[in-house]
Amino acid sequence: MHTSLFPTQSPITRADRQALLGQGAFAIWLYGLSGSGKTTIAYHLEQQLFHEKILVYCLDGDNIRNGLCRDLSFTQADRTENLRRVAEVVKLFLDAGILCIASFITPKESDRAMIKEILGSGNVIDVYLQCSLNTCAQRDVKQLYKMAQNNRILNFTGVSSLFEPPEQPSLVIDTEHESIEDCVNAVYRHCFHKG
Amino acid sequence: MHTSLFPTQSPITRADRQALLGQGAFAIWLYGLSGSGKTTIAYHLEQQLFHEKILVYCLDGDNIRNGLCRDLSFTQADRTENLRRVAEVVKLFLDAGILCIASFITPKESDRAMIKEILGSGNVIDVYLQCSLNTCAQRDVKQLYKMAQNNRILNFTGVSSLFEPPEQPSLVIDTEHESIEDCVNAVYRHCFHKG
Repeated sequence: MHTSLFPTQSPITRADRQALLGQGAFAIWLYGLSGSGKTTIAYHLEQQLFHEKILVYCLDGDNIRNGLCRDLSFTQADRTENLRRVAEVVKLFLDAGILCIASFITPKESDRAMIKEILGSGNVIDVYLQCSLNTCAQRDVKQLYKMAQNNRILNFTGVSSLFEPPEQPSLVIDTEHESIEDCVNAVYRHCFHKG
Repeated sequence: MHTSLFPTQSPITRADRQALLGQGAFAIWLYGLSGSGKTTIAYHLEQQLFHEKILVYCLDGDNIRNGLCRDLSFTQADRTENLRRVAEVVKLFLDAGILCIASFITPKESDRAMIKEILGSGNVIDVYLQCSLNTCAQRDVKQLYKMAQNNRILNFTGVSSLFEPPEQPSLVIDTEHESIEDCVNAVYRHCFHKG
């Protein structure tokens, strides 16, 4: 081993990996209340992109809260730390040339600003999934609103914790009135400048 | 939006992504003292694999300690937490179909066991880079041993913190006496069953 050959950074760059994959890497950050359709839209979009042979990966509570962030609670500080870690992981994925879809409630403007700061604003498209609290609570897909209303979940956004509507979202999708297909298409067109 | 269409997991699997990329995804975990050649071997191996059109990504202190784990110190507990998070990130990369090379000192047997527990032992090949403390300290590529000996770095492995040699490593590479090229080739052959 010759110490003079010690490399200071990887010889393979993000641009190299994007060229190998034939795609650009950026993040689509879907946010909104629980029940606003984040996961549904993420998975539909992922499927559509994958069928176009785009390497795309979804990050959401399911694969983050049970793994990387299993040590975190849902206090405000821990939610911010959760989002910070996710943004740092997304940054690594983008460096690896992979397109990411992140689906997190992301209730605070300051956290959204932190995410853009970590990723660089040119690397992330933030998409607000707009849906009234009433409709989300009526859907209650995971029965979480019911549990929150019975105080069986603390710090639940919309019930016992605040959601701050975004002031300048890149894109707003009305998931209360539009069909899943229309929502997915609107995100797709916005992010890929098609149609 | 129809709640009945709510998906419970991504429709795209690791197998789908591996098929798209035409590669298997697993982790190569290089560990050993500072100066044992982890980063050097990682980058050389990455370059070789990338030239074979394998999508591979390196995780090391440089892209982890300044990002995902910037909140952590070098106490024993924080070093374990650092490795836990890295293993969880590697797990996500493997799920995305990407081959990972992780380069971390990983000084404790219990941490190596934790990493295998998180990833599943079939998903990770651990490679011990064997090199005497004297030689590593003489190389002192980053001038870290010098700083540690002057107490300007605390908890430095080999000086003020213990390194436990592995009891059952998958592969041992003698980076003290072998050339970089031979070391890289040995890891390559072992991991890809070639040559």
